[in-house]
Amino acid sequence: MSKTNPGNFFEDFTLGQVIEHATPRTITEGDRAVYGSIYPTRFAVPSSAVFAASVGLTGSNGEGHPVEDLIGFHVAFGKTVPDVSLNAVANLGYAECRFHAPIVPGDTISTSSEVIGLKQNSNGKTGVVYVRSTAVNQRDEVVLDWARWVMVHKRNTEAPAPETVVPELAPFVAAEDLVIPAGLDFTDYDFVAAGEPHRFDDYEVGEKIDHVDGVTLTESEHQQATRLWQNTAKVHFNVEARPDGNRLVYGGHVISLARALAFNGLANAQLIAAINAGAHTSPAFAGDTIYAWSEVLDKAETSAPGVGALRLRLVATKGRDESMTLKGDDGKYAPGVLLDLDHWVLVPR
Amino acid sequence: MSKTNPGNFFEDFTLGQVIEHATPRTITEGDRAVYGSIYPTRFAVPSSAVFAASVGLTGSNGEGHPVEDLIGFHVAFGKTVPDVSLNAVANLGYAECRFHAPIVPGDTISTSSEVIGLKQNSNGKTGVVYVRSTAVNQRDEVVLDWARWVMVHKRNTEAPAPETVVPELAPFVAAEDLVIPAGLDFTDYDFVAAGEPHRFDDYEVGEKIDHVDGVTLTESEHQQATRLWQNTAKVHFNVEARPDGNRLVYGGHVISLARALAFNGLANAQLIAAINAGAHTSPAFAGDTIYAWSEVLDKAETSAPGVGALRLRLVATKGRDESMTLKGDDGKYAPGVLLDLDHWVLVPR
Amino acid sequence: MSKTNPGNFFEDFTLGQVIEHATPRTITEGDRAVYGSIYPTRFAVPSSAVFAASVGLTGSNGEGHPVEDLIGFHVAFGKTVPDVSLNAVANLGYAECRFHAPIVPGDTISTSSEVIGLKQNSNGKTGVVYVRSTAVNQRDEVVLDWARWVMVHKRNTEAPAPETVVPELAPFVAAEDLVIPAGLDFTDYDFVAAGEPHRFDDYEVGEKIDHVDGVTLTESEHQQATRLWQNTAKVHFNVEARPDGNRLVYGGHVISLARALAFNGLANAQLIAAINAGAHTSPAFAGDTIYAWSEVLDKAETSAPGVGALRLRLVATKGRDESMTLKGDDGKYAPGVLLDLDHWVLVPR
Repeated sequence: MSKTNPGNFFEDFTLGQVIEHATPRTITEGDRAVYGSIYPTRFAVPSSAVFAASVGLTGSNGEGHPVEDLIGFHVAFGKTVPDVSLNAVANLGYAECRFHAPIVPGDTISTSSEVIGLKQNSNGKTGVVYVRSTAVNQRDEVVLDWARWVMVHKRNTEAPAPETVVPELAPFVAAEDLVIPAGLDFTDYDFVAAGEPHRFDDYEVGEKIDHVDGVTLTESEHQQATRLWQNTAKVHFNVEARPDGNRLVYGGHVISLARALAFNGLANAQLIAAINAGAHTSPAFAGDTIYAWSEVLDKAETSAPGVGALRLRLVATKGRDESMTLKGDDGKYAPGVLLDLDHWVLVPR
Repeated sequence: MSKTNPGNFFEDFTLGQVIEHATPRTITEGDRAVYGSIYPTRFAVPSSAVFAASVGLTGSNGEGHPVEDLIGFHVAFGKTVPDVSLNAVANLGYAECRFHAPIVPGDTISTSSEVIGLKQNSNGKTGVVYVRSTAVNQRDEVVLDWARWVMVHKRNTEAPAPETVVPELAPFVAAEDLVIPAGLDFTDYDFVAAGEPHRFDDYEVGEKIDHVDGVTLTESEHQQATRLWQNTAKVHFNVEARPDGNRLVYGGHVISLARALAFNGLANAQLIAAINAGAHTSPAFAGDTIYAWSEVLDKAETSAPGVGALRLRLVATKGRDESMTLKGDDGKYAPGVLLDLDHWVLVPR
Repeated sequence: MSKTNPGNFFEDFTLGQVIEHATPRTITEGDRAVYGSIYPTRFAVPSSAVFAASVGLTGSNGEGHPVEDLIGFHVAFGKTVPDVSLNAVANLGYAECRFHAPIVPGDTISTSSEVIGLKQNSNGKTGVVYVRSTAVNQRDEVVLDWARWVMVHKRNTEAPAPETVVPELAPFVAAEDLVIPAGLDFTDYDFVAAGEPHRFDDYEVGEKIDHVDGVTLTESEHQQATRLWQNTAKVHFNVEARPDGNRLVYGGHVISLARALAFNGLANAQLIAAINAGAHTSPAFAGDTIYAWSEVLDKAETSAPGVGALRLRLVATKGRDESMTLKGDDGKYAPGVLLDLDHWVLVPR
């Protein structure tokens, strides 16, 4: 019998099944540095232990300061690939992703997934699997959870279809369901150190921000980032995995790049509280130059001192679009749009 | 007088000579992260401090957990390059490499080499130098030792030949000579966290495992890895160092890549106990796509609780060879074979 | 109003103005590792905690050992880019850069700049801004300071010219003004561990050293290094930022590369005490192969036990120039010269 992992096929998933994903992963200061070498991030909380402490964020041992929120996201997400999406035809979407607690170096992240929905496609060859994944730290505290659905091949097209169950997922996380990190306090927020003066009240719903800067992708950089998260999807690393001979850039790479570019105009969006939805509308490849713009979708107060929440649409484009057009008259994404990410961030009031 | 290092030539080596290699090198969490960004490693011990502690492996100060065994190997080996192989015509082989103790962040590694053999070639222009190298940590405990032989240029072809001494080296490390890390205990091994259910008894001598996945090499990644080990061999970094204008990929890069790919089928091969022999049969260059397969050569029990040893042949190939052919009918390595590495790993029983 | 940073234009600067730069940045072991993956550095102090302790250099908490001096330089310098040189036509020069204290992992660096001179150009379109920048750690101790002057666009060519003030800057830091790190003691210096036997007395003023080795630049590596320092200058990352479609290599990348190459002949130049002046005479791009040579400009004793200072010219070239020619008969830099860096290093006596 083969000892290598063939991945799961559609008929391997059953409703209510819980999958414990290999391999637990300890986050380190090395991850922060490699991340900073690949993404042009400058947010003050992950950049500076002093700044993080000034807003109430330190490690559980009084040491360490939070790494980029997306490091936790990529690591936790990467764990699920070998079990959930190795045989995926397409990653269809994710929702209800909440960041429960910042991760500091020394934390060890483990992820498990529960199958919450199944729907065979009418062609009988594929089906959609819905999972809710939960990442916990070494103290078994939830650090991140999210729902995700992927289209997966059937191993055997003759296999009977399971009962169709499609879970109800919120179009976005309600403001009152956001988890504010314990201790977070923006009362004495240092806007000069953070890099911009704009606070909660300066942002208006409907406002769009062109983040101006662009980054040209290289093969090494997207591979290194994706590998760091132990994401094993073949298409990112192997020119023989796709008919066109190109290595596909991991969608999460575009998210991290756009998030870092958004510093220019959203420097005070220190923490990501939730990801409501994400559409990866076009593939990205080495050589592409990526730009980003944001739109303010909603605003909410929070119970934490001095902390407000902005719901943002973060859009990554290939080539700069100063018109910041999301969709054409036909309702389709405009040419050049790579990513449409709906998320909540926490900002000083 | 020139202040730069010309390297040693054949007549600079004398039997019994001991060379203390510069520069001691402290291993850090940064090394773990950079390694993880360059190689698709997912072995649970170096990935997770929690998992490492569950099998008895923690740092000497109760903190830290082992880094990849090959980090120690590359650092220790890299130290010897300026003194031993800067003028090498060819790296002919290595043997009797034993891993004595896992390395944790904070450990400082120093390496020395003793000349154990000399043999001038009949052409009078080159000779073979045999050294036994030993790497120790800051407490002067041996962490790694190995024998190696290289063909080196003579500075002066008129120089008299030394007495020929060729050391006897074991074709492989005997199972009873393997060093098991202090404290290692696989009794409560968590197979789910580690990623595969296969244990000692599931592997049979003669069994071959195709590790399936491939990775396409980039120039930056092999340079970054090789540089991290302070390996200074010019051919890896300088397009002007070889007539063909290509940068040669460090053989150790292929070892680390193949070892990481072997996770898929050998996820429980947590630790390398010994490297018996290694043949780098073809050069690798950026653009090549590397695959790996393994063959079980032998099995042995050990004295440590729950710990067995597998002797494996790890083969890296350019392009995937599902037939897993090592050599052709002519007894020569099959086209595409880059590496034939004979080594011992420790697995749960 | 736009929320993104337009950078400052010439008329935004006023004499005596103090700019606090975003974002404070905590240095980590990860920075050391990424640096070591990008530059072929082997200096014993940043390489080994044991060696560093043997010459009196440990972290303020008794832990940690200094990172490469240039890590501090690049981070501190990078901070000033968004405020000082985002609209620069040219980086004209720097002077009086002194390294006051080694930086260890855990230190958080903040930088501020004071405008010390202004001079509008006769074309009325641009002007030269002189700033003195100071980097401090989390205890508000100065770790680095330097003067720098850049040519900056005017936003409005009609704006009145400020009074011309050109500060007097020393052509080089006088030996007696060098700051020797507290505790530094080279009395028991281990030349074998450091890699070369050459000490203070072995170097003569006027002596030139060809550092022999070359490194071919890749796009990923210079981007990763520059990004790690949070340097946001567009030309380094975006092929659409320059008419020729090339990404310009950050001048500091060439400095770090040349400094690392200088190990071969200057292995005992453990610490940089000052940078007197730097001319970036030609641009560098991916694909170029960089070599380095040094010239001893001056020598000085210091008050620290066993510590001498060498004033060196470090020259980086595209392609190797064994003749080590700085300038042609016309007084212009020889073809191939990329960098002419005048600096002080500390060596054992």
